[in-house]
Amino acid sequence: MTAYPIAATKAELERGEVLAPRFDAAGLIAAVTTHAETGEVLMFAWMNAEALSLTVETGLAHYYSRSRKALWKKGETSGQVQLVRELRVDCDQDAVWLKVLPQGDGGACHVGFRSCFYRVVEGGRLVERPDS
Amino acid sequence: MTAYPIAATKAELERGEVLAPRFDAAGLIAAVTTHAETGEVLMFAWMNAEALSLTVETGLAHYYSRSRKALWKKGETSGQVQLVRELRVDCDQDAVWLKVLPQGDGGACHVGFRSCFYRVVEGGRLVERPDS
Repeated sequence: MTAYPIAATKAELERGEVLAPRFDAAGLIAAVTTHAETGEVLMFAWMNAEALSLTVETGLAHYYSRSRKALWKKGETSGQVQLVRELRVDCDQDAVWLKVLPQGDGGACHVGFRSCFYRVVEGGRLVERPDS
Repeated sequence: MTAYPIAATKAELERGEVLAPRFDAAGLIAAVTTHAETGEVLMFAWMNAEALSLTVETGLAHYYSRSRKALWKKGETSGQVQLVRELRVDCDQDAVWLKVLPQGDGGACHVGFRSCFYRVVEGGRLVERPDS
């Protein structure tokens, strides 16, 4: 597994060429996953160092499940494997953005919708509108 | 300020019509912000209850700065105000997705790029490629 370095300066963190993820106290960084073709935000999840390095090495999205306290290869049981087309990191390297092609039934959400963000906040209420 | 309820059941949390955000131990939920027209992920940030209710009430994106430990109206100093076109919540209500129209110079990142995700992970290195 890749051992990630810590950026020594703000310039290295923000403009450097070295991936130096800033894991939080629990050892996690935020991961935003969008559909590589439609741009739809599919899910928001977490990665630990192992999940991030496995994602980079295999090209398949891996996350860390905080509820199960375990590495989680997306789609391992659901078939909703995610082929990673591009991986980006943000300015302060505490979040990554994955552009993926969902396999299986094309979904990403355990509730059964394509995206986890199937509800809009509207007039103070939540309205299910899966076509984002 | 809106006082948010706690969903009593998994069904209420996942399929209910009541916004019942699951703030973490620090009182925060994750916020993913995309450009309402291009779909580009502009930034990843955090909201506390006050930031969320102000965002809903004013239609302007508010966040919570963990480094400054303060409410943060996006664009207050930079001019990069974000008009919220749609606000979505995910299945377990611990993340929101804002579709926004950035004002001012159209950017969202303090480093000077339009999106905070201006670097791609490629061959183990970070490559600046602002046109996501």
